[in-house]
Amino acid sequence: MRTTAENAELALLLDVTSTPKPGNVDRAHDHEDLRFEHFMAGAVGASEGLRMAAAGEPVGTAFERAVEGMANQRGGNTQFGALLTLVPLVAAARAEGGVTPESAANVVESTTVEDAAGFYRAFEHVDVAVDDPPDGMDALDVRHGADAIPTLRDRELTLYDVLAASVERDGLAREWVSRFPRSFETAERIESGDGPVPDRAARAYLELLASEPDTFVATAHDEATAREVCEAARAVRRGETSPETLADQLVAAGVNPGTTADLVAAGLFVALERGLDV
Amino acid sequence: MRTTAENAELALLLDVTSTPKPGNVDRAHDHEDLRFEHFMAGAVGASEGLRMAAAGEPVGTAFERAVEGMANQRGGNTQFGALLTLVPLVAAARAEGGVTPESAANVVESTTVEDAAGFYRAFEHVDVAVDDPPDGMDALDVRHGADAIPTLRDRELTLYDVLAASVERDGLAREWVSRFPRSFETAERIESGDGPVPDRAARAYLELLASEPDTFVATAHDEATAREVCEAARAVRRGETSPETLADQLVAAGVNPGTTADLVAAGLFVALERGLDV
Repeated sequence: MRTTAENAELALLLDVTSTPKPGNVDRAHDHEDLRFEHFMAGAVGASEGLRMAAAGEPVGTAFERAVEGMANQRGGNTQFGALLTLVPLVAAARAEGGVTPESAANVVESTTVEDAAGFYRAFEHVDVAVDDPPDGMDALDVRHGADAIPTLRDRELTLYDVLAASVERDGLAREWVSRFPRSFETAERIESGDGPVPDRAARAYLELLASEPDTFVATAHDEATAREVCEAARAVRRGETSPETLADQLVAAGVNPGTTADLVAAGLFVALERGLDV
Repeated sequence: MRTTAENAELALLLDVTSTPKPGNVDRAHDHEDLRFEHFMAGAVGASEGLRMAAAGEPVGTAFERAVEGMANQRGGNTQFGALLTLVPLVAAARAEGGVTPESAANVVESTTVEDAAGFYRAFEHVDVAVDDPPDGMDALDVRHGADAIPTLRDRELTLYDVLAASVERDGLAREWVSRFPRSFETAERIESGDGPVPDRAARAYLELLASEPDTFVATAHDEATAREVCEAARAVRRGETSPETLADQLVAAGVNPGTTADLVAAGLFVALERGLDV
Protein backbone atom coordinates (compact mmCIF):
# COMPACT_ATOMS: atom_id res chain seq x y z
CA MET A 1 0.00 0.00 0.00
CA ARG A 2 3.00 2.34 0.32
CA THR A 3 3.65 4.34 -2.83
CA THR A 4 6.98 4.14 -4.63
CA ALA A 5 7.98 7.55 -3.28
CA GLU A 6 7.07 6.45 0.25
CA ASN A 7 9.21 3.33 -0.15
CA ALA A 8 12.14 5.53 -1.18
CA GLU A 9 11.68 7.80 1.82
CA LEU A 10 11.36 4.80 4.13
CA ALA A 11 14.55 3.35 2.60
CA LEU A 12 16.39 6.54 3.64
CA LEU A 13 15.01 6.24 7.18
CA LEU A 14 15.77 2.52 7.51
CA ASP A 15 19.27 3.11 6.14
CA VAL A 16 20.18 5.51 8.94
CA THR A 17 18.35 3.33 11.49
CA SER A 18 20.42 0.25 10.55
CA THR A 19 23.07 -0.27 13.21
CA PRO A 20 25.98 -0.61 13.41
CA LYS A 21 27.02 0.83 10.07
CA PRO A 22 30.64 1.54 11.02
CA GLY A 23 31.72 5.12 10.27
CA ASN A 24 28.24 6.38 9.47
CA VAL A 25 25.58 8.07 11.52
CA ASP A 26 23.26 5.27 12.63
CA ARG A 27 20.81 4.56 15.42
CA ALA A 28 23.69 4.35 17.92
CA HIS A 29 26.20 6.85 16.47
CA ASP A 30 26.25 10.56 15.69
CA HIS A 31 28.99 12.70 14.23
CA GLU A 32 29.64 15.93 16.08
CA ASP A 33 27.62 18.24 13.84
CA LEU A 34 25.81 15.66 11.76
CA ARG A 35 23.30 13.77 13.82
CA PHE A 36 20.53 11.23 13.44
CA GLU A 37 17.80 13.87 13.48
CA HIS A 38 19.37 15.60 10.48
CA PHE A 39 18.85 12.41 8.49
CA MET A 40 15.19 12.29 9.63
CA ALA A 41 14.68 15.86 8.43
CA GLY A 42 16.66 15.13 5.25
CA ALA A 43 14.45 12.15 4.37
CA VAL A 44 11.22 14.06 4.97
CA GLY A 45 12.56 17.04 3.03
CA ALA A 46 13.46 14.82 0.06
CA SER A 47 9.95 13.40 -0.19
CA GLU A 48 8.55 15.93 -2.68
CA GLY A 49 11.44 15.32 -5.11
CA LEU A 50 10.94 11.57 -4.74
CA ARG A 51 7.25 12.01 -5.56
CA MET A 52 8.23 13.98 -8.66
CA ALA A 53 10.49 11.13 -9.82
CA ALA A 54 7.69 8.63 -9.19
CA ALA A 55 5.30 10.81 -11.19
CA GLY A 56 7.56 10.82 -14.23
CA GLU A 57 9.15 14.26 -13.90
CA PRO A 58 12.64 14.42 -15.44
CA VAL A 59 15.34 12.79 -13.31
CA GLY A 60 17.40 16.00 -13.05
CA THR A 61 14.43 18.10 -11.94
CA ALA A 62 13.32 15.52 -9.36
CA PHE A 63 16.87 15.10 -8.08
CA GLU A 64 17.41 18.83 -7.66
CA ARG A 65 14.11 19.18 -5.78
CA ALA A 66 14.94 16.21 -3.56
CA VAL A 67 18.35 17.65 -2.69
CA GLU A 68 16.91 21.10 -2.06
CA GLY A 69 14.39 19.64 0.41
CA MET A 70 16.99 17.34 1.99
CA ALA A 71 19.25 20.30 2.66
CA ASN A 72 16.64 22.04 4.80
CA GLN A 73 18.26 21.02 8.11
CA ARG A 74 21.38 22.07 9.96
CA GLY A 75 23.53 18.98 9.48
CA GLY A 76 24.61 19.65 5.90
CA ASN A 77 24.87 16.84 3.37
CA THR A 78 22.90 13.89 4.68
CA GLN A 79 21.65 11.99 1.63
CA PHE A 80 22.97 13.53 -1.61
CA GLY A 81 24.56 10.28 -2.79
CA ALA A 82 21.63 8.14 -1.69
CA LEU A 83 19.29 10.38 -3.69
CA LEU A 84 21.53 10.22 -6.76
CA THR A 85 21.04 6.45 -6.67
CA LEU A 86 17.40 6.42 -5.55
CA VAL A 87 15.96 8.95 -7.99
CA PRO A 88 16.62 6.87 -11.15
CA LEU A 89 15.50 3.70 -9.35
CA VAL A 90 12.26 5.44 -8.33
CA ALA A 91 11.74 6.55 -11.94
CA ALA A 92 12.48 2.99 -13.09
CA ALA A 93 9.72 1.63 -10.84
CA ARG A 94 7.22 3.23 -13.26
CA ALA A 95 8.09 0.58 -15.88
CA GLU A 96 5.67 -2.29 -16.39
CA GLY A 97 7.87 -4.82 -14.60
CA GLY A 98 8.81 -2.40 -11.83
CA VAL A 99 12.36 -1.58 -10.82
CA THR A 100 14.84 -3.97 -12.48
CA PRO A 101 18.39 -3.61 -13.80
CA GLU A 102 16.84 -3.18 -17.25
CA SER A 103 14.30 -0.50 -16.34
CA ALA A 104 16.96 1.35 -14.35
CA ALA A 105 19.35 1.22 -17.33
CA ASN A 106 16.60 2.60 -19.55
CA VAL A 107 16.08 5.53 -17.20
CA VAL A 108 19.71 6.56 -16.91
CA GLU A 109 20.46 6.03 -20.60
CA SER A 110 17.51 8.29 -21.45
CA THR A 111 18.75 11.21 -19.37
CA THR A 112 19.22 14.53 -21.16
CA VAL A 113 21.38 17.65 -21.03
CA GLU A 114 18.60 19.25 -18.96
CA ASP A 115 18.91 16.43 -16.42
CA ALA A 116 22.62 17.19 -16.20
CA ALA A 117 21.73 20.85 -15.60
CA GLY A 118 19.47 19.81 -12.70
CA PHE A 119 22.31 17.73 -11.24
CA TYR A 120 24.65 20.74 -11.34
CA ARG A 121 22.03 23.02 -9.81
CA ALA A 122 21.63 20.53 -6.95
CA PHE A 123 25.19 21.30 -5.84
CA GLU A 124 24.08 24.87 -5.10
CA HIS A 125 21.81 23.62 -2.29
CA VAL A 126 24.38 21.78 -0.20
CA ASP A 127 28.14 21.32 0.25
CA VAL A 128 29.21 17.93 -1.07
CA ALA A 129 32.73 16.57 -0.66
CA VAL A 130 34.06 16.04 -4.21
CA ASP A 131 37.39 15.42 -5.94
CA ASP A 132 38.91 17.61 -8.61
CA PRO A 133 37.28 16.88 -11.96
CA PRO A 134 38.87 14.48 -14.49
CA ASP A 135 41.34 15.83 -17.08
CA GLY A 136 39.73 18.17 -19.57
CA MET A 137 36.65 18.57 -17.37
CA ASP A 138 37.66 21.68 -15.37
CA ALA A 139 34.80 23.69 -16.80
CA LEU A 140 32.50 20.94 -15.56
CA ASP A 141 33.69 20.86 -11.96
CA VAL A 142 30.48 20.28 -10.01
CA ARG A 143 31.57 23.00 -7.60
CA HIS A 144 30.72 25.51 -10.36
CA GLY A 145 27.06 24.61 -9.84
CA ALA A 146 24.74 26.28 -12.37
CA ASP A 147 27.68 28.16 -13.90
CA ALA A 148 28.70 24.93 -15.62
CA ILE A 149 25.39 24.62 -17.44
CA PRO A 150 26.42 26.55 -20.61
CA THR A 151 29.37 24.18 -20.99
CA LEU A 152 27.06 21.17 -20.57
CA ARG A 153 24.89 22.56 -23.36
CA ASP A 154 27.85 23.36 -25.62
CA ARG A 155 29.20 19.85 -25.27
CA GLU A 156 25.72 18.27 -25.31
CA LEU A 157 26.46 16.20 -22.22
CA THR A 158 23.61 14.25 -20.64
CA LEU A 159 23.54 13.34 -16.95
CA TYR A 160 24.57 9.83 -17.97
CA ASP A 161 27.61 11.29 -19.81
CA VAL A 162 28.56 13.37 -16.77
CA LEU A 163 28.46 10.40 -14.43
CA ALA A 164 30.20 8.11 -16.94
CA ALA A 165 33.18 10.49 -16.74
CA SER A 166 33.48 9.72 -12.99
CA VAL A 167 33.31 5.93 -12.91
CA GLU A 168 36.96 5.60 -11.91
CA ARG A 169 36.48 7.41 -8.60
CA ASP A 170 32.79 7.23 -7.80
CA GLY A 171 31.01 4.04 -6.81
CA LEU A 172 27.61 5.61 -7.45
CA ALA A 173 28.59 6.63 -11.00
CA ARG A 174 29.55 2.98 -11.52
CA GLU A 175 26.03 1.97 -10.50
CA TRP A 176 24.61 4.38 -13.07
CA VAL A 177 26.62 2.99 -15.98
CA SER A 178 26.42 -0.72 -15.13
CA ARG A 179 22.74 -1.43 -14.29
CA PHE A 180 23.07 -0.83 -10.53
CA PRO A 181 24.65 -4.21 -9.75
CA ARG A 182 25.55 -3.55 -6.12
CA SER A 183 22.15 -1.96 -5.39
CA PHE A 184 20.30 -5.04 -6.64
CA GLU A 185 22.75 -7.41 -4.95
CA THR A 186 22.16 -5.56 -1.66
CA ALA A 187 18.40 -5.88 -2.14
CA GLU A 188 18.80 -9.65 -2.52
CA ARG A 189 20.92 -9.86 0.61
CA ILE A 190 18.35 -7.93 2.61
CA GLU A 191 15.45 -9.99 1.21
CA SER A 192 17.14 -13.30 1.98
CA GLY A 193 18.23 -12.27 5.49
CA ASP A 194 16.59 -13.08 8.80
CA GLY A 195 15.37 -10.86 11.61
CA PRO A 196 14.48 -7.18 11.75
CA VAL A 197 15.10 -5.29 8.52
CA PRO A 198 17.62 -2.83 10.03
CA ASP A 199 19.74 -5.75 11.26
CA ARG A 200 19.73 -7.29 7.80
CA ALA A 201 20.66 -3.95 6.25
CA ALA A 202 23.53 -3.51 8.70
CA ARG A 203 24.89 -6.93 7.72
CA ALA A 204 24.56 -6.05 4.03
CA TYR A 205 26.46 -2.82 4.69
CA LEU A 206 29.35 -4.72 6.22
CA GLU A 207 29.47 -7.13 3.28
CA LEU A 208 29.52 -4.23 0.82
CA LEU A 209 32.21 -2.44 2.82
CA ALA A 210 34.35 -5.59 2.82
CA SER A 211 33.87 -6.18 -0.89
CA GLU A 212 35.31 -2.94 -2.34
CA PRO A 213 36.99 0.24 -1.07
CA ASP A 214 34.42 2.98 -0.42
CA THR A 215 34.87 5.75 -2.99
CA PHE A 216 33.59 8.49 -0.68
CA VAL A 217 36.37 7.61 1.78
CA ALA A 218 38.87 7.73 -1.11
CA THR A 219 37.58 11.21 -2.03
CA ALA A 220 37.42 12.64 1.48
CA HIS A 221 40.73 11.00 2.55
CA ASP A 222 42.71 8.91 0.05
CA GLU A 223 42.81 5.52 -1.67
CA ALA A 224 45.00 4.01 1.02
CA THR A 225 42.49 4.90 3.75
CA ALA A 226 39.67 3.44 1.68
CA ARG A 227 41.61 0.18 1.27
CA GLU A 228 42.36 0.05 5.01
CA VAL A 229 38.68 0.44 5.86
CA CYS A 230 37.81 -2.32 3.41
CA GLU A 231 40.44 -4.55 5.03
CA ALA A 232 39.09 -3.71 8.50
CA ALA A 233 35.59 -4.68 7.37
CA ARG A 234 36.99 -8.02 6.19
CA ALA A 235 38.53 -8.53 9.63
CA VAL A 236 35.08 -7.93 11.15
CA ARG A 237 33.57 -10.49 8.80
CA ARG A 238 36.24 -12.99 9.82
CA GLY A 239 35.25 -12.39 13.44
CA GLU A 240 38.61 -10.86 14.38
CA THR A 241 36.98 -7.67 15.65
CA SER A 242 33.41 -6.54 16.32
CA PRO A 243 31.45 -4.16 14.10
CA GLU A 244 30.93 -1.96 17.19
CA THR A 245 34.70 -1.63 17.66
CA LEU A 246 35.17 -0.71 14.01
CA ALA A 247 32.31 1.78 14.32
CA ASP A 248 33.97 3.48 17.28
CA GLN A 249 37.34 3.56 15.47
CA LEU A 250 35.94 5.09 12.28
CA VAL A 251 33.81 7.68 14.08
CA ALA A 252 36.87 8.68 16.14
CA ALA A 253 38.97 8.97 12.97
CA GLY A 254 36.27 10.93 11.12
CA VAL A 255 36.13 8.30 8.39
CA ASN A 256 32.68 7.96 6.86
CA PRO A 257 32.06 5.26 4.21
CA GLY A 258 29.16 7.21 2.77
CA THR A 259 28.99 5.55 -0.63
CA THR A 260 28.47 2.17 1.02
CA ALA A 261 25.58 3.57 3.08
CA ASP A 262 24.09 5.06 -0.11
CA LEU A 263 24.10 1.62 -1.70
CA VAL A 264 22.28 0.19 1.33
CA ALA A 265 19.57 2.84 0.90
CA ALA A 266 19.26 1.83 -2.75
CA GLY A 267 19.09 -1.86 -1.83
CA LEU A 268 16.45 -1.19 0.84
CA PHE A 269 14.35 0.69 -1.71
CA VAL A 270 14.49 -2.13 -4.26
CA ALA A 271 13.63 -4.68 -1.57
CA LEU A 272 10.67 -2.59 -0.33
CA GLU A 273 9.40 -2.20 -3.90
CA ARG A 274 9.56 -5.95 -4.32
CA GLY A 275 7.45 -6.48 -1.22
CA LEU A 276 9.81 -6.58 1.77
CA ASP A 277 7.72 -6.24 4.95
CA VAL A 278 8.83 -3.98 7.79
CA MET B 1 10.32 25.34 3.39
CA ARG B 2 8.85 22.15 4.85
CA THR B 3 5.10 21.90 4.33
CA THR B 4 2.73 21.55 7.28
CA ALA B 5 2.23 17.86 6.51
CA GLU B 6 6.00 17.35 6.36
CA ASN B 7 6.39 19.04 9.74
CA ALA B 8 3.81 16.65 11.17
CA GLU B 9 5.60 13.63 9.74
CA LEU B 10 8.93 14.93 11.02
CA ALA B 11 7.37 15.45 14.46
CA LEU B 12 6.46 11.75 14.54
CA LEU B 13 10.03 10.82 13.58
CA LEU B 14 11.65 13.18 16.07
CA ASP B 15 9.30 11.95 18.79
CA VAL B 16 10.50 8.35 18.48
CA THR B 17 14.11 9.54 18.04
CA SER B 18 14.01 11.49 21.33
CA THR B 19 15.85 9.48 23.98
CA PRO B 20 15.40 8.44 26.69
CA LYS B 21 11.61 8.51 26.78
CA PRO B 22 11.19 6.01 29.61
CA GLY B 23 8.77 3.20 28.77
CA ASN B 24 8.47 4.07 25.10
CA VAL B 25 10.26 2.89 22.01
CA ASP B 26 12.99 5.44 21.40
CA ARG B 27 16.38 5.64 19.70
CA ALA B 28 17.87 3.38 22.38
CA HIS B 29 14.91 1.13 23.29
CA ASP B 30 12.68 -1.34 21.48
CA HIS B 31 9.80 -3.40 22.79
CA GLU B 32 9.90 -7.06 21.82
CA ASP B 33 7.52 -6.90 18.85
CA LEU B 34 7.25 -3.13 18.48
CA ARG B 35 10.50 -1.66 17.30
CA PHE B 36 11.96 1.63 16.12
CA GLU B 37 11.61 0.72 12.43
CA HIS B 38 7.86 0.22 12.88
CA PHE B 39 7.59 3.86 13.93
CA MET B 40 9.60 4.91 10.83
CA ALA B 41 7.20 2.98 8.59
CA GLY B 42 4.22 4.27 10.58
CA ALA B 43 5.28 7.90 10.10
CA VAL B 44 5.86 7.47 6.36
CA GLY B 45 2.57 5.59 6.01
CA ALA B 46 0.67 8.38 7.80
CA SER B 47 1.97 11.06 5.43
CA GLU B 48 -0.88 10.92 2.90
CA GLY B 49 -3.51 11.38 5.64
CA LEU B 50 -1.50 14.28 7.07
CA ARG B 51 -1.42 15.88 3.61
CA MET B 52 -5.19 15.48 3.40
CA ALA B 53 -5.60 17.30 6.73
CA ALA B 54 -3.28 20.07 5.56
CA ALA B 55 -5.31 20.37 2.34
CA GLY B 56 -8.56 20.91 4.23
CA GLU B 57 -10.12 17.46 3.92
CA PRO B 58 -12.44 16.64 6.83
CA VAL B 59 -10.63 15.70 10.05
CA GLY B 60 -12.28 12.28 10.27
CA THR B 61 -11.39 11.35 6.68
CA ALA B 62 -7.79 12.52 7.06
CA PHE B 63 -7.43 10.75 10.40
CA GLU B 64 -8.77 7.46 9.05
CA ARG B 65 -6.41 7.64 6.04
CA ALA B 66 -3.44 8.48 8.30
CA VAL B 67 -4.18 5.53 10.60
CA GLU B 68 -4.70 3.19 7.65
CA GLY B 69 -1.27 4.12 6.26
CA MET B 70 0.36 4.04 9.69
CA ALA B 71 -0.88 0.50 10.24
CA ASN B 72 0.97 -0.80 7.17
CA GLN B 73 3.82 -2.31 9.17
CA ARG B 74 4.18 -5.33 11.43
CA GLY B 75 4.48 -3.63 14.81
CA GLY B 76 0.79 -2.83 15.31
CA ASN B 77 -0.29 0.47 16.83
CA THR B 78 2.59 2.89 16.62
CA GLN B 79 1.06 6.37 16.38
CA PHE B 80 -2.75 6.23 16.68
CA GLY B 81 -2.85 8.65 19.62
CA ALA B 82 -0.24 10.95 18.15
CA LEU B 83 -2.29 11.20 14.94
CA LEU B 84 -5.48 11.90 16.89
CA THR B 85 -3.71 14.93 18.32
CA LEU B 86 -1.76 15.92 15.20
CA VAL B 87 -4.55 15.79 12.63
CA PRO B 88 -6.63 18.65 14.14
CA LEU B 89 -3.44 20.66 14.77
CA VAL B 90 -2.42 20.18 11.12
CA ALA B 91 -5.88 21.32 10.03
CA ALA B 92 -5.60 24.30 12.38
CA ALA B 93 -2.36 25.39 10.72
CA ARG B 94 -4.48 26.39 7.68
CA ALA B 95 -5.89 29.33 9.68
CA GLU B 96 -4.50 32.80 8.98
CA GLY B 97 -2.48 32.92 12.18
CA GLY B 98 -1.31 29.32 11.88
CA VAL B 99 -1.70 26.72 14.59
CA THR B 100 -2.81 28.32 17.87
CA PRO B 101 -5.05 27.22 20.76
CA GLU B 102 -7.82 29.23 19.10
CA SER B 103 -7.48 27.80 15.60
CA ALA B 104 -7.19 24.30 17.06
CA ALA B 105 -10.36 24.86 19.12
CA ASN B 106 -12.16 26.05 15.98
CA VAL B 107 -11.19 22.86 14.15
CA VAL B 108 -12.32 20.42 16.82
CA GLU B 109 -15.52 22.34 17.62
CA SER B 110 -16.41 22.24 13.93
CA THR B 111 -16.14 18.47 13.61
CA THR B 112 -19.19 16.61 12.34
CA VAL B 113 -20.95 13.28 12.67
CA GLU B 114 -19.08 12.19 9.54
CA ASP B 115 -15.78 12.98 11.28
CA ALA B 116 -16.89 10.74 14.13
CA ALA B 117 -17.66 8.01 11.58
CA GLY B 118 -14.09 8.33 10.21
CA PHE B 119 -12.72 8.01 13.74
CA TYR B 120 -14.67 4.78 14.30
CA ARG B 121 -13.59 3.39 10.93
CA ALA B 122 -9.96 4.06 11.90
CA PHE B 123 -10.26 1.43 14.65
CA GLU B 124 -10.79 -1.19 11.95
CA HIS B 125 -7.24 -0.68 10.68
CA VAL B 126 -5.33 -1.38 13.88
CA ASP B 127 -5.74 -2.80 17.39
CA VAL B 128 -5.77 0.00 19.95
CA ALA B 129 -5.79 -0.63 23.70
CA VAL B 130 -9.01 0.93 25.02
CA ASP B 131 -11.13 0.88 28.15
CA ASP B 132 -14.77 -0.13 28.32
CA PRO B 133 -16.97 2.76 27.17
CA PRO B 134 -18.58 5.18 29.65
CA ASP B 135 -22.05 4.36 31.05
CA GLY B 136 -24.77 4.48 28.42
CA MET B 137 -22.21 4.38 25.61
CA ASP B 138 -22.03 0.61 25.02
CA ALA B 139 -23.34 0.97 21.49
CA LEU B 140 -20.51 3.43 20.88
CA ASP B 141 -17.65 1.21 22.06
CA VAL B 142 -14.88 2.05 19.61
CA ARG B 143 -14.21 -1.68 19.31
CA HIS B 144 -17.41 -1.88 17.24
CA GLY B 145 -15.61 0.08 14.52
CA ALA B 146 -17.89 1.02 11.62
CA ASP B 147 -20.80 -0.91 13.19
CA ALA B 148 -21.21 1.98 15.62
CA ILE B 149 -21.80 4.50 12.83
CA PRO B 150 -25.61 4.15 12.68
CA THR B 151 -25.75 4.92 16.41
CA LEU B 152 -23.52 7.97 15.92
CA ARG B 153 -25.95 9.19 13.24
CA ASP B 154 -29.06 8.45 15.35
CA ARG B 155 -27.64 10.41 18.27
CA GLU B 156 -26.09 13.10 16.04
CA LEU B 157 -22.74 12.85 17.78
CA THR B 158 -19.79 14.74 16.31
CA LEU B 159 -16.19 13.67 16.81
CA TYR B 160 -15.90 16.42 19.41
CA ASP B 161 -18.89 14.93 21.27
CA VAL B 162 -17.37 11.45 21.16
CA LEU B 163 -14.07 12.63 22.61
CA ALA B 164 -15.75 14.87 25.17
CA ALA B 165 -17.35 11.71 26.60
CA SER B 166 -13.85 10.34 27.36
CA VAL B 167 -12.16 13.26 29.07
CA GLU B 168 -12.13 11.49 32.42
CA ARG B 169 -9.88 8.70 31.22
CA ASP B 170 -8.13 9.99 28.13
CA GLY B 171 -5.46 12.68 28.18
CA LEU B 172 -5.79 13.22 24.44
CA ALA B 173 -9.55 13.78 24.67
CA ARG B 174 -8.73 16.42 27.30
CA GLU B 175 -6.51 18.15 24.76
CA TRP B 176 -9.36 18.17 22.27
CA VAL B 177 -11.84 19.82 24.61
CA SER B 178 -9.53 22.33 26.28
CA ARG B 179 -7.53 23.98 23.46
CA PHE B 180 -4.59 21.53 23.56
CA PRO B 181 -2.92 23.09 26.61
CA ARG B 182 -0.27 20.43 27.17
CA SER B 183 0.59 20.27 23.46
CA PHE B 184 1.29 24.02 23.33
CA GLU B 185 3.08 23.98 26.68
CA THR B 186 5.33 21.20 25.36
CA ALA B 187 6.04 23.24 22.21
CA GLU B 188 7.16 26.15 24.41
CA ARG B 189 9.43 23.89 26.46
CA ILE B 190 11.05 22.51 23.33
CA GLU B 191 11.45 25.97 21.78
CA SER B 192 13.03 27.42 24.89
CA GLY B 193 15.37 24.46 25.44
CA ASP B 194 19.04 24.14 24.51
CA GLY B 195 20.88 21.59 22.45
CA PRO B 196 19.71 19.07 19.86
CA VAL B 197 15.95 18.95 19.38
CA PRO B 198 15.58 15.27 20.39
CA ASP B 199 17.31 16.02 23.72
CA ARG B 200 14.94 18.91 24.37
CA ALA B 201 11.95 16.72 23.49
CA ALA B 202 13.14 13.96 25.84
CA ARG B 203 13.34 16.50 28.67
CA ALA B 204 9.86 17.79 27.83
CA TYR B 205 8.60 14.19 27.93
CA LEU B 206 9.95 13.70 31.42
CA GLU B 207 8.35 16.94 32.63
CA LEU B 208 5.00 15.89 31.17
CA LEU B 209 5.29 12.43 32.71
CA ALA B 210 6.03 13.95 36.11
CA SER B 211 3.17 16.42 35.87
CA GLU B 212 0.19 14.06 35.48
CA PRO B 213 -0.47 10.28 35.43
CA ASP B 214 -0.36 8.95 31.86
CA THR B 215 -3.85 7.90 30.82
CA PHE B 216 -2.63 5.20 28.42
CA VAL B 217 -0.87 3.51 31.34
CA ALA B 218 -4.09 3.80 33.37
CA THR B 219 -6.00 2.12 30.52
CA ALA B 220 -3.49 -0.63 29.77
CA HIS B 221 -2.76 -1.30 33.49
CA ASP B 222 -4.60 0.72 36.16
CA GLU B 223 -4.72 4.11 37.87
CA ALA B 224 -2.32 3.04 40.61
CA THR B 225 0.35 2.06 38.06
CA ALA B 226 -0.10 5.37 36.26
CA ARG B 227 0.36 7.25 39.54
CA GLU B 228 3.48 5.20 40.36
CA VAL B 229 5.03 6.03 36.99
CA CYS B 230 4.27 9.71 37.53
CA GLU B 231 5.90 9.52 40.95
CA ALA B 232 8.93 7.73 39.47
CA ALA B 233 9.30 10.50 36.87
CA ARG B 234 9.26 13.05 39.70
CA ALA B 235 12.07 11.10 41.38
CA VAL B 236 14.06 11.34 38.12
CA ARG B 237 13.46 15.07 38.02
CA ARG B 238 14.67 15.38 41.60
CA GLY B 239 17.85 13.56 40.54
CA GLU B 240 17.15 10.53 42.74
CA THR B 241 17.36 8.15 39.81
CA SER B 242 18.42 8.43 36.17
CA PRO B 243 16.03 8.52 33.20
CA GLU B 244 17.95 5.54 31.77
CA THR B 245 17.21 3.48 34.90
CA LEU B 246 13.53 4.38 34.75
CA ALA B 247 13.53 3.50 31.03
CA ASP B 248 14.95 0.06 31.74
CA GLN B 249 12.45 -0.51 34.58
CA LEU B 250 9.41 0.48 32.52
CA VAL B 251 10.47 -1.51 29.45
CA ALA B 252 11.04 -4.55 31.67
CA ALA B 253 7.60 -4.10 33.28
CA GLY B 254 5.90 -3.57 29.90
CA VAL B 255 4.65 -0.15 31.00
CA ASN B 256 4.38 2.31 28.11
CA PRO B 257 3.34 5.92 28.83
CA GLY B 258 2.05 6.32 25.29
CA THR B 259 -0.17 9.36 25.86
CA THR B 260 2.80 11.34 27.13
CA ALA B 261 4.77 10.45 23.97
CA ASP B 262 1.78 11.50 21.84
CA LEU B 263 1.81 14.92 23.51
CA VAL B 264 5.52 15.28 22.71
CA ALA B 265 4.77 14.60 19.03
CA ALA B 266 2.09 17.29 19.14
CA GLY B 267 4.46 19.73 20.85
CA LEU B 268 7.20 19.02 18.31
CA PHE B 269 4.77 19.70 15.47
CA VAL B 270 3.68 23.05 16.90
CA ALA B 271 7.31 24.04 17.48
CA LEU B 272 8.30 23.06 13.92
CA GLU B 273 5.37 25.04 12.52
CA ARG B 274 6.51 28.06 14.50
CA GLY B 275 9.99 27.81 13.01
CA LEU B 276 12.01 25.45 15.19
CA ASP B 277 15.18 24.49 13.29
CA VAL B 278 16.43 20.90 13.25
